[in-house]
Amino acid sequence: MGNADDETCPPTNHYNPSAVNHRRVAIPPPQPFVKSLKNTLKETFFPDDPLRQFKNQPAGRKAVLGSQYLFPILEWGPRYTLGLFKSDLIAGITIASLAIPQGISYAKLANLPPILGLYSSFVPPLVYAVMGSSRDLAVGTVAVGSLLTGSMLSNVVSPTQDPKLYLHLAFTATFFAGVFEAALGIFRLGFIVDFLSHATIVGFMSGAATVVCLQQLKGIFGLDHFTHATDIISVTRSVFTQFHKWRWESAVLGCVFLFYLQLARYFSKKKAKLFWISAMAPLTSVILGSVLVYFTHAEKHGVQVIGELKKGINPASIMDLNFDSQYLPGTIKTGIVTGIIALAEGIAVGRSFAMLKNYNIDGNKEMIAFGMMNLAGSCTSCYLTAGPFSRSAVNVNAGCRTAVSNIVMAFAVMITLLFLTPLFYYTPLVVLSSIIIAAMLGLIDYESAIHLWHVDKFDFAVCLSAYIGVVFANIEIGLTLAVGLSIMRVLLFVARPRTLVLGNIPDTKVYRNVDHYENANSVPGILILEIDSPIYFANSNYLRERISRWIDDEEDKLKSSGETGLQYVVLDMSAVGNIDTSGISMLDEVKKMVDRRGLKLALVNPGSEVMKKMNKSKLLETIGQEWIFLTVGEAVGACNYKLHSCNPKMNYDDESEKYSSNV
Amino acid sequence: MGNADDETCPPTNHYNPSAVNHRRVAIPPPQPFVKSLKNTLKETFFPDDPLRQFKNQPAGRKAVLGSQYLFPILEWGPRYTLGLFKSDLIAGITIASLAIPQGISYAKLANLPPILGLYSSFVPPLVYAVMGSSRDLAVGTVAVGSLLTGSMLSNVVSPTQDPKLYLHLAFTATFFAGVFEAALGIFRLGFIVDFLSHATIVGFMSGAATVVCLQQLKGIFGLDHFTHATDIISVTRSVFTQFHKWRWESAVLGCVFLFYLQLARYFSKKKAKLFWISAMAPLTSVILGSVLVYFTHAEKHGVQVIGELKKGINPASIMDLNFDSQYLPGTIKTGIVTGIIALAEGIAVGRSFAMLKNYNIDGNKEMIAFGMMNLAGSCTSCYLTAGPFSRSAVNVNAGCRTAVSNIVMAFAVMITLLFLTPLFYYTPLVVLSSIIIAAMLGLIDYESAIHLWHVDKFDFAVCLSAYIGVVFANIEIGLTLAVGLSIMRVLLFVARPRTLVLGNIPDTKVYRNVDHYENANSVPGILILEIDSPIYFANSNYLRERISRWIDDEEDKLKSSGETGLQYVVLDMSAVGNIDTSGISMLDEVKKMVDRRGLKLALVNPGSEVMKKMNKSKLLETIGQEWIFLTVGEAVGACNYKLHSCNPKMNYDDESEKYSSNV
Repeated sequence: MGNADDETCPPTNHYNPSAVNHRRVAIPPPQPFVKSLKNTLKETFFPDDPLRQFKNQPAGRKAVLGSQYLFPILEWGPRYTLGLFKSDLIAGITIASLAIPQGISYAKLANLPPILGLYSSFVPPLVYAVMGSSRDLAVGTVAVGSLLTGSMLSNVVSPTQDPKLYLHLAFTATFFAGVFEAALGIFRLGFIVDFLSHATIVGFMSGAATVVCLQQLKGIFGLDHFTHATDIISVTRSVFTQFHKWRWESAVLGCVFLFYLQLARYFSKKKAKLFWISAMAPLTSVILGSVLVYFTHAEKHGVQVIGELKKGINPASIMDLNFDSQYLPGTIKTGIVTGIIALAEGIAVGRSFAMLKNYNIDGNKEMIAFGMMNLAGSCTSCYLTAGPFSRSAVNVNAGCRTAVSNIVMAFAVMITLLFLTPLFYYTPLVVLSSIIIAAMLGLIDYESAIHLWHVDKFDFAVCLSAYIGVVFANIEIGLTLAVGLSIMRVLLFVARPRTLVLGNIPDTKVYRNVDHYENANSVPGILILEIDSPIYFANSNYLRERISRWIDDEEDKLKSSGETGLQYVVLDMSAVGNIDTSGISMLDEVKKMVDRRGLKLALVNPGSEVMKKMNKSKLLETIGQEWIFLTVGEAVGACNYKLHSCNPKMNYDDESEKYSSNV
Repeated sequence: MGNADDETCPPTNHYNPSAVNHRRVAIPPPQPFVKSLKNTLKETFFPDDPLRQFKNQPAGRKAVLGSQYLFPILEWGPRYTLGLFKSDLIAGITIASLAIPQGISYAKLANLPPILGLYSSFVPPLVYAVMGSSRDLAVGTVAVGSLLTGSMLSNVVSPTQDPKLYLHLAFTATFFAGVFEAALGIFRLGFIVDFLSHATIVGFMSGAATVVCLQQLKGIFGLDHFTHATDIISVTRSVFTQFHKWRWESAVLGCVFLFYLQLARYFSKKKAKLFWISAMAPLTSVILGSVLVYFTHAEKHGVQVIGELKKGINPASIMDLNFDSQYLPGTIKTGIVTGIIALAEGIAVGRSFAMLKNYNIDGNKEMIAFGMMNLAGSCTSCYLTAGPFSRSAVNVNAGCRTAVSNIVMAFAVMITLLFLTPLFYYTPLVVLSSIIIAAMLGLIDYESAIHLWHVDKFDFAVCLSAYIGVVFANIEIGLTLAVGLSIMRVLLFVARPRTLVLGNIPDTKVYRNVDHYENANSVPGILILEIDSPIYFANSNYLRERISRWIDDEEDKLKSSGETGLQYVVLDMSAVGNIDTSGISMLDEVKKMVDRRGLKLALVNPGSEVMKKMNKSKLLETIGQEWIFLTVGEAVGACNYKLHSCNPKMNYDDESEKYSSNV
C-alpha cells in the first residue's frame, strides 16, 4: 500500500488503503533486557504479587504485615470471639473423635506403631493453626500418604526385621517432606503441584483407595503373613493361597462393623444435618469393638487386638533422624513423593472449602505451613501429615469457623495420650480395618471419572491410566504414567497445533473457522489460515509442512473447480502468543515458499512478542510491513483491492525458475 | 438479550440485540468419539498425509507408487540422463577425496580402527542412494556421532584393553541406532527429533566441535596416554601435565597442515567457485604428509603413522553383533542417542538444501532411509553414518544433481579399499588431527549464537547451556540440559500464559492489547481480558488467581479515580485453542467469583473445542449462551447497551451475603 507500484492502480474497490494506514500493527517499544527479564521472572514466580500490601507502608506496619503474612493467626487472633470459640469447640471435638481411630488405623497402613497416629494428630495441627491460612482444613495423617510411606520405605528397610531403623527412616522421610514442601513455598515453585491435574488426582486417589482396601483384607481375615506388594494380583494371590488360615470370627466382626459404618454414611449423605452419625461412627465402632472383645475374650480366639499403647505425649525424635548415606536416596525420594502428594491433596481441599466460603488461600503460604508442620512433626515423633478431605468435610459440617478447631482437636488427642491410651488395649484390629475400608470406599470417585469421560476423553485416559497403574503395578508407576500423559498432552498441543481455514461470516467483517461456523464462506483467490498455538521449535517443521499442504489442497481444489487461482495467503497470528528463532526461520521459509509459487503472503495481528522478534530478525523487512494487518478483514480488503484493480506482480518467477531442479 | 428482563429497557443505544442474534457462537455439531479420535491420530501421526497420492488409484498403480515411496530411486531413476551423470560424477569424485581422509580420521575419534571409516563410506551411501529422498546429502561418518560413540561406549568397555569386544559393541550400537531410526520413521514419530531445537543443535554442535578439537591435542602433541574424559578441564590437565612428553616434530607438522587447511578454506570462502581448493585440501594434506614421512623417515622420530590397513572391501559383521545382556543397556543407549543426533543433523542438512533447490524432503521417509543404511552398515563392518553438513555442502558446490554422486563416491572408496590402502601406511596421524580440527573449527557456529542472542534471549540461553554442558561436563549432560530447558520453556508458556488487557482502537470496532497499542483506550465499566494459551491443568490455578487480581486492580483503580465502578468482565477466548476439565472448573469458579462481586461475565469467540466442552459440562448453561459473543466489539456493544439503558441486576447479592464469613 502506498508504494509506487500501487499508485498506478485506480481505486475501483471500497477498500481505501490510506484510511487504514494510521492503524498498523505497531512494533512494541524496545524494552531493556534487564527490565523484561525482571517482568518475566515476576510474572512466573510472583503472579499473586504477595508484596503488594507492603507498598508505601511505614517500617513498623511492614513488620506487623510481615509477621501476619507468616503467621495468619496474628491477623485473625485479635478478632477472635467467644461465639466463634463455641462453634470451633464442637467442631474440634467432632474431628477428634474421628482423628483418634483414623490415626491409629492409618499408622498401621504405614507399618508404624499405632501410637504414632495419635502423636501425629497432636503437634502438627497446632503448627498449622498458627501458620495455615485455611479456616476449614482438619490436619492429620492421610490414608494415601501413609500407604505411600509404607510401600516406599519398605523397599529401603523391612519394617518387621528392623522396626527401629524403619521408624527412624519414617521420621527422616517426614523431615525431607517438610523441607521439600517449605522449599516449594519459599522459592515460589507452587506451580509444580499444578502439574498434578484434577484427572490425575482422581485416578490416583481412587487407585490408592482400592489398593488400601485390598491391603485391609489382611486385617479382615486375620492373616499373619501377607505380601508386601500392593498390586491387585499379588494381594489376591496372597489372600486366596492362605484360605485355610482365614479367621472367620475376625471376618464376621469386620463385615458387621463395615456394614454399620456404611449405614451411618448412608444416613449422613441423605441428610446433611445427620453428618455427626457418620462422624461418630468410627469412635463408636472402636468402643463397641473393644467392649465386645473385653467381655468375650475374643482376643484368645483369633481376633487380634492393638495391645499396650504407651501413655504420655510425643517424645522428641530429633535425635532419631537418620542421614546415613546408605538410606538417604530412599528417604529423600519418599519425602519428595509423599510431600508433593500431601500438598496436592491438602491444597485442593483447602481451596475448595475456601471457594465455598468466599475467602482466598495462598498456595505458596500453605506450602510453607505444610512444610513447617511436617518439619516440627519429624522432630516430635510424628510422621507425614496433611489435610485429609473426609476429616475437613466433617470439620466444615460441624460448623468450624477458624483453625481453632484444630487446636481443640489437638488438646483432645493430648488428653487421650495422657490418660486414655489403656482403653485401646482390647480394640480389635479388624475394627480398624473396617474404618479404613469405609473411609477408602468414599475416596473411589467413580462419579468424577464418568464426568471426565463425558467432558474430555483425554482427561479420562489420564485418570484411567493413573488408576490402572496404581492398582495393577504400583503407586509410583501409576503416578508417573498419569503425570507423563498429562505433560505429553501439553507438549502434543504445542507440537501439533491446529491450523484452521477461516471464512467470512455473511454481512460482517468477521472471519471464523469454516469447520466450526457452517455459514462462513471462503474468499475466492485468498487462503486464510489461523495458527492456534505459539510457534516453537517443536512445531515449526510441522507448521511449515502443514501450511504448504493447505496451499496444495487449495490450489488442487480451485484447479478442479475451474475457479480463479490462488493469489494470496493470509496467516492470522492472533493466537500465536510467542515465537522462537526456529519459528522465525519457519516463517521465513514459508515466505520464500509462497514467493516461489507466485503468491503473496500477508500476516494478521501478530502479538507484541512476535512483532518484536520479527523486527529484530529482519523478517519484518522480508515480509514487508505493508503486508501486516490489524484484522483479517483489512487484509482481505487489501488483497481484494489489488486482485480486482491490477494483476498481482509475478516478480518472483525468475527466482523460482532459477531454483527449480531439472530432475 | 431477548429475555423478558431486557424487554423493559428502551433501546437507547446504537447496539441492536436482535440484529446480532443470528450470528452467535455456534456449538459445533457433535462428532462420534471414534471419528474425532481418528482425526486427532491422523493429524498427529500423518500430518503430511503420505497416502494422498494412493487415493482412487488401481491396485497396480498403487504397488508402483508404494515401491516408489520406499525406494525413491525408482521414481527418478528412469528419468536419469547422461548429462546428469556428468555432474554427479564430478561431485562424487570430489566428495570421495574428502570422504577418505575424513573417514580415517573420524574412526580414530570413535576409538575404532581407521579402516572402518573407509568401510562406512562404502555400503551406507549405496543404501541411501536407493532409499533416500535428498538429492544433495553426502553420506558418511560424522565427527560428532563418532565422538559420541567413542565416549559412550568407552564407559561400557575399554577400547584399549578389549578392542575386539569394543568393535563388536560399536556394530551393535550402530544396529540399534538403525533400528531406532527406522522405528521412528515407520511409527511416524519423527516429531521427537523436532524437540532438538535449532538453538540446541547450534550449541551442542559447537560444544562437540570444541571437545573434538581438544581431543586432537593428543595427536598434535604426539601423546601416548591421554584422558578418556572429554571435558575441557580434564583434557587441559592431561595435556599440560605431560609437557615433558610433547613431540615437537609432530606439533610443528600439525600446525603447518592446519595452517594450510585453514588457508584453503579462506580462499574457498572468499570465492564460491574455488570450493574445490578446500575440498581437495584434506587429500593433498594426506598425500603431502605421507610423502614427507616416507622420505624423511619421520616415523622413527616421534611422528606416529597409520601403519598397515587391510586390503579388501567390507567383511560381513552380522555374526559379530553382541546382544549379551551385560552390555545391552550400554549399546541400546548409545544407539538411541547417536541415532537421534545423527538424524537431527542429517535431516536438518537435507531440508536446508532441499529448501534451496525447491523440492520436498519427507522427514519420516528420511528416517527409514537412515535406519536402513545403519542397519545394513552394522552387518557390513560399518559404524554410525549420517549426512555431514561439510561434505554435503561440498557435494552441492561440486554440482551434484542426484543421489548418484553417493554411488560414485562409494565406488571410489571401493577402489581405494581394493587397491590403494597400502598407500596410507606412512600417513602421519598428526595430519589426520589437523584435518579433524579444520573441519571442527567450521562447526563452531558463533555467528548463529550471536543471532540467537539478538532475536531470542531464551534460545540463546538454551544454546549456551548446551555448549557449556558439553564442554565443561560431558556430551550427555549438555544435551539433556538443552533439551530440558527447551521443554521447560514450552511447559512454562502453558503454565504461565499471558493475560492481556484489551482496549478499543479509536474509530474502529477492533480491540487490542493496551500495552502493545498505545492508542487503544479501555472502555469505562468493562474489563476486557485476553487469555493467550490453551487452558489446562497446568495453568488453571494461575489463571483463576490472575483474573481475580486483574479485577481487584481494576476496581482499585476505578475507586481511586472516582469513575463508575466495574460492571462487566469480558474474556476474549480467541487464543484459547483447547481446554481440559481443570480449565472448565476454573471458568466455573471465575463465573462464581464474578457473580459474588456483583459483576457480569461475558465470553468472546471460544473455539470449537472449547464450545464443545463447555456444552458437555453444562458450563454453557451456567454462563448463559446469551453471554457468549462472536467478537469483542459485540460483547462491548451488548454491555454498553445494558449499562446505559438499565441498571445491571444485582441478584447475586443474597448469595454473596450467605457465603461471606464472619471472621
